[in-house]
Amino acid sequence: MTAASERSKLVYFFGAGQAEGDRGMRDRLGGKGANLAEMTGMGIPVPPGFTISTEVCTVFMESGGQYPAELRPEVDEAFARMEQLLGRRFGDEERPLMVSVRSGAAVSMPGMMDTVLNLGLNDRTVEGLARDSGNPRFALDAYRRLLQMYGDVVLGIPHDRFERPLAAAKEAAGVEHDSQLGEGPLRALVREFLEIIRRGGRTFPQEPHDQLWGAIAAVFTSWGSRRATHYRRKCGIPDTLGTAVNVQGMVFGNLGEDSATGVAFTRDPSTGVCELYGEYLVNAQGEDVVAGIRTPHPIRRNGDGTSLEERMPGTFSELAQVCDRLERHYRDIQDLEFTVERGRLWLLQTRTGKRSAAAAVRSAVEMVAEGLIDEATAVGRIDPGQLQTLLHPSIDESASFEVLATGLAASPGAASGQVVFTADEAAELGEAGEQVVLVRRETSPEDIHGMTAAQAILTARGGTTSHAAVVARGMGKCCVAGCKEIDILPDGSAFSVGAVTVRKGDWITLDGSTGRVILGRVATRPSELQGEFRTVMEWCDRFRRLGVRANADTPHDARQAIEFGAEGIGLCRTEHMFFDEERILLVRRMIFAASNSARRAAIDGLRPLQRGDFADIFRAMGGRPVTIRLLDPPLHEFLPHEGDDLSPVAAGLGVSTSELRSTIARLAEANPMLGHRGCRLGITYPEITEMQARAMGEAACDVAAEGVEVALEVMVPLVGVARELALQAAVIRRVIDEVLAERGAELGYTIGTMIELPRACVTADEIAREAQFFSFGTNDLTQTVFGLSRDDSGKFLQVYLDEAIYPADPFAVLDEAGVGRLIRMAVELGRSARPDLKVGICGEHGGDPASVAFCHRAGLDYVSCSPFRVPVARLAAAQAALAESGDAGRRVAEERLAAR
Amino acid sequence: MTAASERSKLVYFFGAGQAEGDRGMRDRLGGKGANLAEMTGMGIPVPPGFTISTEVCTVFMESGGQYPAELRPEVDEAFARMEQLLGRRFGDEERPLMVSVRSGAAVSMPGMMDTVLNLGLNDRTVEGLARDSGNPRFALDAYRRLLQMYGDVVLGIPHDRFERPLAAAKEAAGVEHDSQLGEGPLRALVREFLEIIRRGGRTFPQEPHDQLWGAIAAVFTSWGSRRATHYRRKCGIPDTLGTAVNVQGMVFGNLGEDSATGVAFTRDPSTGVCELYGEYLVNAQGEDVVAGIRTPHPIRRNGDGTSLEERMPGTFSELAQVCDRLERHYRDIQDLEFTVERGRLWLLQTRTGKRSAAAAVRSAVEMVAEGLIDEATAVGRIDPGQLQTLLHPSIDESASFEVLATGLAASPGAASGQVVFTADEAAELGEAGEQVVLVRRETSPEDIHGMTAAQAILTARGGTTSHAAVVARGMGKCCVAGCKEIDILPDGSAFSVGAVTVRKGDWITLDGSTGRVILGRVATRPSELQGEFRTVMEWCDRFRRLGVRANADTPHDARQAIEFGAEGIGLCRTEHMFFDEERILLVRRMIFAASNSARRAAIDGLRPLQRGDFADIFRAMGGRPVTIRLLDPPLHEFLPHEGDDLSPVAAGLGVSTSELRSTIARLAEANPMLGHRGCRLGITYPEITEMQARAMGEAACDVAAEGVEVALEVMVPLVGVARELALQAAVIRRVIDEVLAERGAELGYTIGTMIELPRACVTADEIAREAQFFSFGTNDLTQTVFGLSRDDSGKFLQVYLDEAIYPADPFAVLDEAGVGRLIRMAVELGRSARPDLKVGICGEHGGDPASVAFCHRAGLDYVSCSPFRVPVARLAAAQAALAESGDAGRRVAEERLAAR
Repeated sequence: MTAASERSKLVYFFGAGQAEGDRGMRDRLGGKGANLAEMTGMGIPVPPGFTISTEVCTVFMESGGQYPAELRPEVDEAFARMEQLLGRRFGDEERPLMVSVRSGAAVSMPGMMDTVLNLGLNDRTVEGLARDSGNPRFALDAYRRLLQMYGDVVLGIPHDRFERPLAAAKEAAGVEHDSQLGEGPLRALVREFLEIIRRGGRTFPQEPHDQLWGAIAAVFTSWGSRRATHYRRKCGIPDTLGTAVNVQGMVFGNLGEDSATGVAFTRDPSTGVCELYGEYLVNAQGEDVVAGIRTPHPIRRNGDGTSLEERMPGTFSELAQVCDRLERHYRDIQDLEFTVERGRLWLLQTRTGKRSAAAAVRSAVEMVAEGLIDEATAVGRIDPGQLQTLLHPSIDESASFEVLATGLAASPGAASGQVVFTADEAAELGEAGEQVVLVRRETSPEDIHGMTAAQAILTARGGTTSHAAVVARGMGKCCVAGCKEIDILPDGSAFSVGAVTVRKGDWITLDGSTGRVILGRVATRPSELQGEFRTVMEWCDRFRRLGVRANADTPHDARQAIEFGAEGIGLCRTEHMFFDEERILLVRRMIFAASNSARRAAIDGLRPLQRGDFADIFRAMGGRPVTIRLLDPPLHEFLPHEGDDLSPVAAGLGVSTSELRSTIARLAEANPMLGHRGCRLGITYPEITEMQARAMGEAACDVAAEGVEVALEVMVPLVGVARELALQAAVIRRVIDEVLAERGAELGYTIGTMIELPRACVTADEIAREAQFFSFGTNDLTQTVFGLSRDDSGKFLQVYLDEAIYPADPFAVLDEAGVGRLIRMAVELGRSARPDLKVGICGEHGGDPASVAFCHRAGLDYVSCSPFRVPVARLAAAQAALAESGDAGRRVAEERLAAR
Repeated sequence: MTAASERSKLVYFFGAGQAEGDRGMRDRLGGKGANLAEMTGMGIPVPPGFTISTEVCTVFMESGGQYPAELRPEVDEAFARMEQLLGRRFGDEERPLMVSVRSGAAVSMPGMMDTVLNLGLNDRTVEGLARDSGNPRFALDAYRRLLQMYGDVVLGIPHDRFERPLAAAKEAAGVEHDSQLGEGPLRALVREFLEIIRRGGRTFPQEPHDQLWGAIAAVFTSWGSRRATHYRRKCGIPDTLGTAVNVQGMVFGNLGEDSATGVAFTRDPSTGVCELYGEYLVNAQGEDVVAGIRTPHPIRRNGDGTSLEERMPGTFSELAQVCDRLERHYRDIQDLEFTVERGRLWLLQTRTGKRSAAAAVRSAVEMVAEGLIDEATAVGRIDPGQLQTLLHPSIDESASFEVLATGLAASPGAASGQVVFTADEAAELGEAGEQVVLVRRETSPEDIHGMTAAQAILTARGGTTSHAAVVARGMGKCCVAGCKEIDILPDGSAFSVGAVTVRKGDWITLDGSTGRVILGRVATRPSELQGEFRTVMEWCDRFRRLGVRANADTPHDARQAIEFGAEGIGLCRTEHMFFDEERILLVRRMIFAASNSARRAAIDGLRPLQRGDFADIFRAMGGRPVTIRLLDPPLHEFLPHEGDDLSPVAAGLGVSTSELRSTIARLAEANPMLGHRGCRLGITYPEITEMQARAMGEAACDVAAEGVEVALEVMVPLVGVARELALQAAVIRRVIDEVLAERGAELGYTIGTMIELPRACVTADEIAREAQFFSFGTNDLTQTVFGLSRDDSGKFLQVYLDEAIYPADPFAVLDEAGVGRLIRMAVELGRSARPDLKVGICGEHGGDPASVAFCHRAGLDYVSCSPFRVPVARLAAAQAALAESGDAGRRVAEERLAAR
């Protein structure tokens, strides 16, 4: 073997039922190329072409723009095969071949070069195409599109420099759509576009091969773009992965009324219903459907005669068969792009279909029933981050409200917000904690930050596969798309629907499940969990090892938690019971007590109230474990805040406002997060701990006397030194045992601690000697490990995310390298001192899928999260368990990768 | 061998030149007992007696008050030997034996039982003693003292119940001192004291052996007292160590004008001058000298005929010989108690003498010269914590001031403060940050918290070995004792000196080196470092491995640091240069800049100023390394604070006050310690980092051009993620390299980071790839590891210390178990990634001796502390190095233990 023969191929041909690649070669061919090869091999009609391997990208990047010497001959050979198959030649003035060039990495990412279509056209071949097609208008339009795309994407001329003359030409011609422009205006536009490129200091290459190599270089260059590089750094994708380049013969959906282009899903991506779903446009090219420029028609019969099924029944039937084959082959919902050229169907792409949470759940369960996949695969296929949308509220139909307009039901759910018209406004108000609905003609990738910040998205144009719809579904966010009734004023200050004007800042409500746009705020109610959802959750419970509990402070939360499948309460914050109006007065009296006896009196006034709360929670939980945390926040949180009116508070306390003011000042802290709080309160005011322990003990006895089991776990917060816990545990044990003796009752209870300080982590062995359980308070732990105040990080967090300093907000996704390392250390040290130590987590991270997976790997016993996140945690826990169990695990990982 | 014969002795006899123990048996006999045995063995006159071993204490504590069966026969046997030697019998009505009982652990500690003297007296033996001594007044006074001490110490009757009738009796008799009371009043007092004990519900045992066993039990019980237990927990002394009990035949210094009692030091404990030093009282018993009730006379000739040397020349000469022998034997300054009974000298105790820092240094150096000890021992013997007092200011004699009175120069140094009259007041004001001078008639162990809080202590009574003097010297605190001229008003509101009245809150200044009490505040100046000090420091530099640098922000600090022996600057805080009046305006302009260009203009205005500062510091340091930290504090620290007048600031900035107010509000942070500060500033405003890097580079070039070497180390603060450092280092490197290119200069510089966040510790390997050095910022690291704000901990820190939750304030003494563990981890990870990583510490802990020792053990390269702490750090570093090097190390450890 020589060195040359060791080198693998650089170019992989596909066409006419034969392909050099297959779907297993995703790393080398990218997702798009691998699937084009796979489809070709299956005998599905795919225009012939070839894929340049990702290895070429790596050479290109490392060499500063050089290609391997073998590349050009391999490309020439593949080109020759393509020309032969299509009976056309690149640059031929009679029957010119046109190709598309597209990027295609193993994982799709932002910042990569868009498609360039119609490569091969120039001032001469355009005339040949006009003659050959018998349609000069089509040929000129194709050339115009090439100039526009190539100018923008390859030559870097700003997009709007082309859009402005195009809009002017349509206005001059008095037409609405590009496709209505005649030959004359198109010819003028071609000249103008060439001039625009020239004025931009660039040259449009007339030689087709120069066009081709320019486009190939642009794809590879885009791999190194700042945006793509940042994205890879954030996601931990190696730069050496590289992108492939797909070069494919053009087919045209814009050759007349017998041509069309469209997008199809093998099942409804919104509902999961098992029927062909999609949209198409007659006489349109390429991105017209996805870009949302014209509102497309449905593929399936809709009764008004515009559907593909009605207009091209043969093509429809062929497409349905292809869809069926692809879904059975890939065993998952497929998202296809197709073009009909003069009645002939061509498939341009297939990939795993993005879907709503509802569709993910329904299709997964149905595919198990159909025997397509097994249960582990089904569980692995559902995105836990998206699942939560299923649990989101929907419009309360019993409320009265005014439907302003109806658009397409693009992404389910319901949400209200103040209307804004730009992504920046949405981001700004969203960050300020406002609820906003982003209203746009159509959206583009530049709007992502605003879509993220918005509660819901409304667009005037575009279909259910438009950018807005696809992105919103991915985000699990409510979206109404293509609502043609709304008219957005040019100055972006309002939109009108008939006579009604909705101004910036007015409230509207969207129902993404029906497409309704509603004036004002409408009451919502939680979604009913469907049968498939319960089925998936049962499978999850079978697979997972981690327990899942909920954070719940009230009986209502406790009941909701059980409804969502929680196995206990991992965190019951007693201070939330103190903020009630009646109670806060008692708390304030406690703070203002001039004597120990007055303090004790105020505290004793709180006891029956706490006892009642605890009893109700014990009843709701019916024997499931309940972890109650002692009072945690600094006392000044119970006093009025700056700007509040002090006089009524002072009057209620029987002190002067100046006395009240001076107490507020005395209790104020420079860094309250690091101040007099947590067990430091219980150490300095043991009477508070005594009262809370007594209330817990009494409530447990009361409920046990009713025949309801009680599993009480008392949790001491903010322990940094083992002796803190020892002292507090002694008080708790003494008081509860006193109560049990008084009642003549027996009660098994445990005492443990929050681990939320780095010192607790590194001395966890000492602490475990005093603790029967640990519960990681990852919110506070993240704050102290990073030295980062959650309340203050807003000033620089975005910069940190943009600069890829933090891969994600560490308060949302657990930082494994730092916080995680301390957690692992604490688990290890803790279990070394007490092998049966129970270990859980009760920070916000307990409901974050990646963090749940970490908790599984770190050997925790359970996670605890807000009730609405419980199903997410159950799913994430199941996936984590599957991920480590061999084949099933690998399958899950592959499924998740393919779905990216 | 039988089990019984394996058991060690419980009782160790000493007397008449023979002893069963020696000084090597400190653990078993306690410090006092071991030394009594040693002295006896040396043939020094010691009243015979015996020591009950510490093992008995352990049995007593563990069994709840039982003694080993063998104890009583052993005590009886020792008692018999004592009676035989002294020719007296315990309880004998003719020639009664009297004994003292004293506690004595290996380490002395607060909360232990005081001495009980004169045990053996009762209603009958007192008459025998009267006859036998021929001095009924003496006998009655001895009995009165026994009742008082036994009643207080053993029976728990409050002290003042006895003091009140005693004072009344003196008033009735018209006398000042106890010793002036006649037989009649004493007989009445004896009756009254017995009645007081009875009324207190207790009985004074008339049977001498009952007295003895009661006193022994009291000693053991005091071992378990709350105060002693807390002290042990804080100091990490095991409870099983136990205390011994010393029972010793009484000798009397109060048998007339040929009797006396006193305290002597083998060298002056204040100056270290090698001459016998001490005080005594004629016709006095036991604690009279130490308690400061009467002002004693000097031992050495003082010219007025009151000295021991003049009044009892033979005894003086004998004492001087004993002192000489003891010092040569123990090879250290000895602190002795002696009694002269009818002309005969008895030694009652010897121990290592507590001394001032000056005395410690001088005596150590002189003892090396005398061949008594080697240099390692000399270095090991000096308390680093105390050393700092040597560097403290003294009175500026060129200032004009009014000397109000002169007392005894009890502890050197000079300090000013507001007068307070109780320890509680001192503690309260001291904690509030006020400077106070505690003025007391005399002090007692109950006053310790006030003495700790005070700048200086002034007493009206007591000598240079009084409680106040001894404690103040131990604390390294200025003290003037026995200032008889001052008259403290009974209501504790003021003191008067002649016609001058000094009220509570008035300022006075004390000079503890001369005994002067000065009205008002007097300027002070730093002490001149003497020859012996330099010698010791040179020895330290020879022994230590750790480098010692200083934290210095100004050229003045830098020069001072070099004066104190700093080898470089470990922390130069650039923000301190920003607070200057002229500069803060530029900083504020930077904050208020409406545009990038305005911000850059403001920042560029700061650059020449910073460049000048840096250049002056480089010049001062002459080639020694200088670590400059980038801007660290949150920007709002540069804006006016609450309550400041905003209008001038607003006018200076050219903004409205409401604009200023809103910017202040916008920049305010919930937890500034965890906010937008440190490298987060440099990441979000790279222009600040650029300016600082340019100023450093230009300053270095300027100074290098003058022929002065520059060793620049640039330090990035608050790094939690390696990429933060990578990004900032890239900016620094680019800018400095630009400057060097412009100047055509060469400069070796390094870039490193503060390690002050837990996340930095656990990801130190990643960070070390970007850092050439680490410097632990232990102030902030302690805050984040404990989740404890230094500014807010005051509310509960005292409780935490009292409850022994923290063994010490973690901001003063590095927490080894938590913070230390993370430091060790960071060092290990850091060096694993970069073996030549330089590692130092620049928090306050860098000047704390225990923390310096930890830094040595943790393998750090250097510590950096405030200039005044540099000598402390040099000494502590030397001791740490000696401690780990075999024999020398053991010797150091032993010396330190013996000195406790």
